[in-house]
Order: sequence, then C-alpha cells, then structure tokens
Amino acid sequence: MILSGTVVVNSDKIIDDGAVVVDDDTITTVGKRNNIIDKFPSHDETQSDILMPGMVGSHIHSVQSLGRGISDDSELLDWLFEHVLPMEAALDAEQMEAAAKLGYLELIETGTTTAIDHLSVAHAERAFEAAGEMGIRGIFGKVLMDRRAPDGLIEETQAGLNETEELIQKYHGSFDDRIRYAVTPRFAVSCTEECLRGARALADKYDGVRIHTHASENQDEVETVEDDTGQRNIHWLDEVGLTGEDVVLAHCVWTDESERTILEETGTHVTHCPSSNMKLASGIAPIVDYLDRGINVALGNDGPPCNNTLDPFTEAKQAGILQKADQLDPTVTPKESILDMATVNGAKAAGFDTVGELKPGWKADIIGISTDNTQATPLNDILSYIVFAAHGENVEFTMVDGEVLMEDNTVTVVDAESIRQDARRAAESLDIKGTRSPTSS
Amino acid sequence: MILSGTVVVNSDKIIDDGAVVVDDDTITTVGKRNNIIDKFPSHDETQSDILMPGMVGSHIHSVQSLGRGISDDSELLDWLFEHVLPMEAALDAEQMEAAAKLGYLELIETGTTTAIDHLSVAHAERAFEAAGEMGIRGIFGKVLMDRRAPDGLIEETQAGLNETEELIQKYHGSFDDRIRYAVTPRFAVSCTEECLRGARALADKYDGVRIHTHASENQDEVETVEDDTGQRNIHWLDEVGLTGEDVVLAHCVWTDESERTILEETGTHVTHCPSSNMKLASGIAPIVDYLDRGINVALGNDGPPCNNTLDPFTEAKQAGILQKADQLDPTVTPKESILDMATVNGAKAAGFDTVGELKPGWKADIIGISTDNTQATPLNDILSYIVFAAHGENVEFTMVDGEVLMEDNTVTVVDAESIRQDARRAAESLDIKGTRSPTSS
Repeated sequence: MILSGTVVVNSDKIIDDGAVVVDDDTITTVGKRNNIIDKFPSHDETQSDILMPGMVGSHIHSVQSLGRGISDDSELLDWLFEHVLPMEAALDAEQMEAAAKLGYLELIETGTTTAIDHLSVAHAERAFEAAGEMGIRGIFGKVLMDRRAPDGLIEETQAGLNETEELIQKYHGSFDDRIRYAVTPRFAVSCTEECLRGARALADKYDGVRIHTHASENQDEVETVEDDTGQRNIHWLDEVGLTGEDVVLAHCVWTDESERTILEETGTHVTHCPSSNMKLASGIAPIVDYLDRGINVALGNDGPPCNNTLDPFTEAKQAGILQKADQLDPTVTPKESILDMATVNGAKAAGFDTVGELKPGWKADIIGISTDNTQATPLNDILSYIVFAAHGENVEFTMVDGEVLMEDNTVTVVDAESIRQDARRAAESLDIKGTRSPTSS
Repeated sequence: MILSGTVVVNSDKIIDDGAVVVDDDTITTVGKRNNIIDKFPSHDETQSDILMPGMVGSHIHSVQSLGRGISDDSELLDWLFEHVLPMEAALDAEQMEAAAKLGYLELIETGTTTAIDHLSVAHAERAFEAAGEMGIRGIFGKVLMDRRAPDGLIEETQAGLNETEELIQKYHGSFDDRIRYAVTPRFAVSCTEECLRGARALADKYDGVRIHTHASENQDEVETVEDDTGQRNIHWLDEVGLTGEDVVLAHCVWTDESERTILEETGTHVTHCPSSNMKLASGIAPIVDYLDRGINVALGNDGPPCNNTLDPFTEAKQAGILQKADQLDPTVTPKESILDMATVNGAKAAGFDTVGELKPGWKADIIGISTDNTQATPLNDILSYIVFAAHGENVEFTMVDGEVLMEDNTVTVVDAESIRQDARRAAESLDIKGTRSPTSS
C-alpha cells in the first residue's frame, strides 16, 4: 500500500507531496511521491492531507471509559476512592469489555495507535482480547492493589501477582507482538512492599515486560507514602525496584531535586498528563526540568472521568501551552518537542523501538489528518496545526502494524455504533451518572 | 420554528425532551416538547441532541485569522510587534475582508453566536459588513493606536477618533441591532492619554457604545505603562475613564489588590483568555479572585495566531481546569460557572441583556450540539460533556437572532469553502508563513 500526502516523518522532517510505502506491517520506503509512485505499480494508493506517526497515549485508563464525566470538580483521592474505584469494582466481565472497547474505539478515532493502558483488577483478559482484536498496539496490565482498596478490588498479594504472571504468559507478545505486558501496581498507597517487589520480580523474569504505575500525582498521596515508608515516593519506588529503563511512572507532579536525580539516573520514563493534573487539581508537573535533565517525557490523557476524552491532540496542545504559562517562558516547550512527547517518546516509554516515526524499517503505525477545515486555514505551519489547532475529529485514517483501522473517518475494524450502544447499555445497567445527568430538569 | 432536544436553558436548568419555540428573532416558549408541540402546528420542527445558548466569544481578533500559527512559541510583545502587527499592517481591504470572514466562519461553525471583536486600524468597515451579512451578533471596533505602532497602523490621534465616530454613526445598532460598536484602543502602551480619553468621550456620547481594550496581559506591558504614567495599568485606565460597566478589559493577568478593587467597584468586565495567556507565556489570570469579588468574567479565544483556533468549547475546558491546577482546588471553577462565563457573562459584558440563556423573551441565539459520538458516550452528564469533552466540531446547528446560520453541520448563510479559499489566497499573496510551513522538507 502507498499512502500519500504531506509526510511528517518526525518533528525534524516534513516531506511535501510525499509518500510512504507500507509492506505487511512495516514502512519500507518514505520520500517524494513522484520518486515513489512509479516504482510500485501494484500498490494501492490512499491519500491524506497530512500523514504522521500515530499518537502514543502513554498513560490511559481505557476501562474507566464508562465513567466519563461522573465526578467533575473533585480532587484526586476523593474522585478515586468515592467515584472511580467503586465504578471499577462494579464492572462485570461484559461491562469491562464494553468499557475497554469504548476506550480503544476513541483511540482509533482520534489517532492514538499505541497505548500504555492501566486496566483494572478484574477481567483484564477482556481488555487484552479487545485491544488485540481492535488492532491497536500497546502495553497493558491488570492492576495490583493489596491494601487501601475498596471491596471488589483488593486482592491477596500473591493472588494478584499470580494472575499477573498468567496474563504475561498468555498475552505478552501476543497478536504479532502488538500486545505486550506491563506489570501494573496501582500506586504505592494501595500496594504493599511485597506487591511492589513482586512486580519488579515479574518484570525481570519475562523479557520485555515493563512496569507501569502512578507516582507522585498528588500531595496527599506523597504524604501517605512518606507516612508509610519514611521516604519520599520516588525514593521508595527506587528502593523496591520501581525505577529504571523498563518503568513508566505516570504524573510525577510532586518530586524534589533528589527524586528527579533518581528519575534521571535510572532512565525512568515519565508520562505527563497535563489535563488530568489540571482537572483533578493535582498541580503542574515540572516537565521543563525533566526535559532539561534528559528524562524521557511522554504524554497521556489519563481517563475519561478526569479529562474527559482520550483525544491526543487536545492533550498535545495542553502540554505545549501549560508549561509556557507556568514558567512564563514561551520557548520552553517548542512544538517540535511536543510532537516528540506525543509520539516517539511514548513509544520509547512503551519499549517499542521502531514506533513513533515514519522511517523505512519502522512499524507502519500511521495516521492521516485532514486539513480541509477552517481551523487548518490558512495552513501556514504544519506542526502548528498538529500541535495547537487540530482535534481528534480531524483524524481520517488510522493504521497500526500495517492494518487499516479507520479510513475516510469510518472505523473499519469494528462496528463503532454497536460499541457505543454496548457502552450506553452498560452504563445504564450500572446506574452511572454525573451530577448533571441527562434526565435532570 | 420549533427546536427540540435536551434544552440547556442556562447553567441551572436542563430540560430533557424539551423544545424551544422561536418567532422572528425571539424565543417565545421553552418547555417540555410534549407540552409544546401540539400548540404550534404550523411551526417547522428541527431536532438537535442538545440545544444550548450560543457561546459568546468575549475577546477575539477575527482579522488576525490569516496569521494562524505564524508565531508559535514566542512571547506576547515579540509576537505582537514582530509578527502580528506587521501582518495586520500589510492587509489591504480585500485581505481584511477575507480574514474577518474566515474568523466569523469559524465562529459560526464552532458555536459562537456573539463576539466582542477587536478589529484592526484600517478597513474596519469590511469586518462590520462581513459580520452583518454573515449573521453573527457582536460588538466590534476599529483599533486605535497613536504611538508605539508600526508604519501602516499608527494614526494621528484625532484622525483615529474621527474615523471611530464615523463608524459608530454608520454601524452602531445596524443589522437589526445585532451589530454594535465598541471603541477599541489597542492598549495603553500604544495609546496616548488623549486617545484614551477620546475613547471614553465617544462611548459617553453614543448610547450603548462600549469600550473594549487589552489590559495587564503581560508583565512588560504593565512595566511600560508604569514607566509612562507612574501608575499601575488599571489605575491609569481608571484615571482616563477606561473602567466602568461599559468597559471590557481583556486578560487582566497582572493586577494587584488595589487594581482588583477598582475593577470590582467600577463594574468593569474582564475577559479571561486562558489558552492565549498560556501560549504567549503571559501567565495565569487570578480569575477565582475576580469571581469571588463578583466581577463579571467572560471568556475569549483571542486570535488564531495565539490560540490557534476560535473554538469556544476548548476554551471553556481550559478555563475550567486551569484555575483548579493553579489554586490546587478542584472546586474553584465548577462547570456551571464555566458555562456562565462562556455564555451569559459574555453577553452581559457585550451589553446584550437578553442574550446567553434560552428563556422566553430572550433573543434566539441558539446552538445545537451532537451527542452521537464517542466522546459523548456514555452521556452521564450533560454539562460535563459541554464543558469538558465537546469540541466545536460537535456543533451541528447555529442560530442567531432567529436566523439559521448552520444546519446539519453545513453553514447555510455563506459558502464556507469559498471563504476558506479566499483566505488561503490572501495568505499566499501576503507570503504569510509559520516556522514549519507546508513546503518545508
């Protein structure tokens, strides 16, 4: 297949009138369309205004999708323990599948091709199967919580680790290695030392398995960990093995100098979730300092109850402008760095070494976005449109691993309307409601 | 005409299975559809998923639309004097019209029905005519700059005031009183005392004419005014008459206690432009304090070179979440208050007393938004969807003053594609480019 359009190879290189040749799951040729088109007469050609690497959602909660908008205007720990965890605990296997599919549908529609996805304690296999079938790439993990968790989510430590190992054996490297495993302790507050060390042991035992957890999102969380362990959170995580090049820490809003040094020296990946941090009043993460230190910073939308969408374009804009306001310096997060965070940095965090740029030999994870709209007019600057003006609605084409998941704005790999209907039904049966539900009058 | 759907009357009242009856330019009845539909057999019915008051863009620069994305990652005064003002100065009458129409097209498409629009020094009549023809409501003003302005924008003081008065006489109250005048000095930095006092005199002379200017957006601006006048900016504006219930001050990021007291005591309106303030590294405006003081705070997208869209939904979300992060308190800007800022507060700032809510006797400025999309699924909370998840792309119907401007996602009042084409041509002829223009490779 040949994809043609303005090709954004990465944040450094844009090819006008370009083309990308895809064979099987791989990009084989990238260049000027004129130099390519005649050499591949048997390849079908598909056109988009802009072709770019698929976005990487480096910290999401697909299975929270049924709780979109259920707890606005509330603070992280209340939001989590009063609203979101009870919802997660209530989901049966069918509802979990409905939630995960809704999340993956939104990713496909809005241009995310790789996810680092924090599932729930139960029914993780439904999400793995859904992600596999729906064609997205990612690292996924059942959540581990062995203390401070509501009924229905708390597990005996070894039971959670055992189930994790079974899921690793079943799904890590599955679906042509699109689907990999991330051992996923929720956060230090809800995990004992045994649980956290067990997570590290599993990641060490299985090649390529990563660790994904929340860290230092909120001041109360940091204080709780300090009360528990006598240490700052990142020090504690480092002591029990939850730092390193195979570890993705979401948020890292509240870190001190010594903790940042640990992140830097261990090569730990940080996922920045600016909209979630803002909406939950968690704070503004010190991303500019992380970037200055060479820490790999990726981007994530977090979940629909806290963002309230998985649209990676609005998150890129947020990351682009929030640090400027916080630092009173517009140069700290140039749009090129934001595109990196939203694409190749996320792939690096997830451990996919040939994902996140459109280069020969790299995986064919490609999205096409339209410029036939007012927000792209005039199109004075391609990267500016991508980072500051485009929305997920402008994505018209999504390909992962060489497979077309959406074309001409229509999801081809599943029936989008039936996924939305299943999600509505599941939310109704669970009686999920926000404060201003549709029937209020 | 009857419009039916879930009716968001205002932030307090939502009517499920509701309907709004529009006669001429006015809403005559609002209620349950079942109680309404049989009483108006001769009225056509149009359905939307959600009907709500049109958004009010309370500080925009329609005529900067050709400069979308031309100066990303730069600071306000550089951005203004190096990039945006030279572009404004270069626009001839045709190009100014193309720019304004592009801006108004984006407003119509994304659900803004009333604008407080800062034009440019020259060719303001092209924007007035365009706004009048295209059907939007608003207060508009030719810009006054009689010092510290580039060639092509600087005017002799009295010449600018004279032209302002001619425009007031021609356009204030025109197009069935949809179009009104706001005397528009750019900001204190670029206006002499004579100019500012002249602006006040004109507003006093003509009933209903307002004043719209920028104030205390940036620290360098505040220092410049202090160097010029020996006073903090809001004190200076107050001294020369640019505070009061007929004054709209955009931004007000950098104000001290005494200045806030002036804003409060004079009933001056403040327009919050969070994304612009973030992108230009201006800072985070003390909106929570303004709200606590009872100051009327409205919302604005500012201009396409600094936002980079006029989508009022993304701006509402930004306003909703930025203050939470800044104050570390998620309750400071509840979604109800954000909807007020985006609608009725803006109408109040603009001086349209019966705009911004869907109530009998109020103007028929109504938008319809779709919930048939993944980001609205499940629809657990109507206001949450509007404030935190919807984008301008979800607007499917736009009515101003009882006239349908867009229906079924298609702008009916003008040919959208020809406006976009004219804008592209104008940008090309001006050689407007960003740093990563479409032809970079």
